[in-house]
Amino acid sequence: MIEERLYVVTYDIADEKRWRRVFKLMHGYGRWLQLSVFQCRLTARRRVELALRLEEIIRTDHDHVLILDLGPADKIDPRVESLGKTFQPVQRSAVVI
Amino acid sequence: MIEERLYVVTYDIADEKRWRRVFKLMHGYGRWLQLSVFQCRLTARRRVELALRLEEIIRTDHDHVLILDLGPADKIDPRVESLGKTFQPVQRSAVVI
Repeated sequence: MIEERLYVVTYDIADEKRWRRVFKLMHGYGRWLQLSVFQCRLTARRRVELALRLEEIIRTDHDHVLILDLGPADKIDPRVESLGKTFQPVQRSAVVI
Repeated sequence: MIEERLYVVTYDIADEKRWRRVFKLMHGYGRWLQLSVFQCRLTARRRVELALRLEEIIRTDHDHVLILDLGPADKIDPRVESLGKTFQPVQRSAVVI
């Protein structure tokens, strides 16, 4: 069986249009946790594919994506606790000043 | 030895002043990874203490904090990859529209 690893992907995207494109892309690769945070189970190939597709969208001088490789997916089971606002899939538009 | 667990804490804070207070607080509990993401090794007591102090700062109707419990700290060693902008401790002010 091809090994899957567990990743947390979080991003800070300066432009609203690009933010939405990343958000849409990420839905195809993992589970949405919070406005800019996804949890993903990925094979090595899918992981490379995701990074390439993210790099096609983001502006490297303005945006920032963090990919945390947590380890083998079947050994890690993150527990998620949330403080504050409950989740809504609201379209957040951040304007960086 | 008291067990420490590894956490990723990420937050979406609507107001600049609160954002900075959370950012400052988090520095006392973990390692800064990206603008709104910290990695923390915490005992159960420190973890409760952090959640209480965060709840004193945030506005539960506007802000959102996610605490991911990844597991025993000595068993998890996340590898961090970053795409895009290199880290700078810039003060980002997000205005949520």
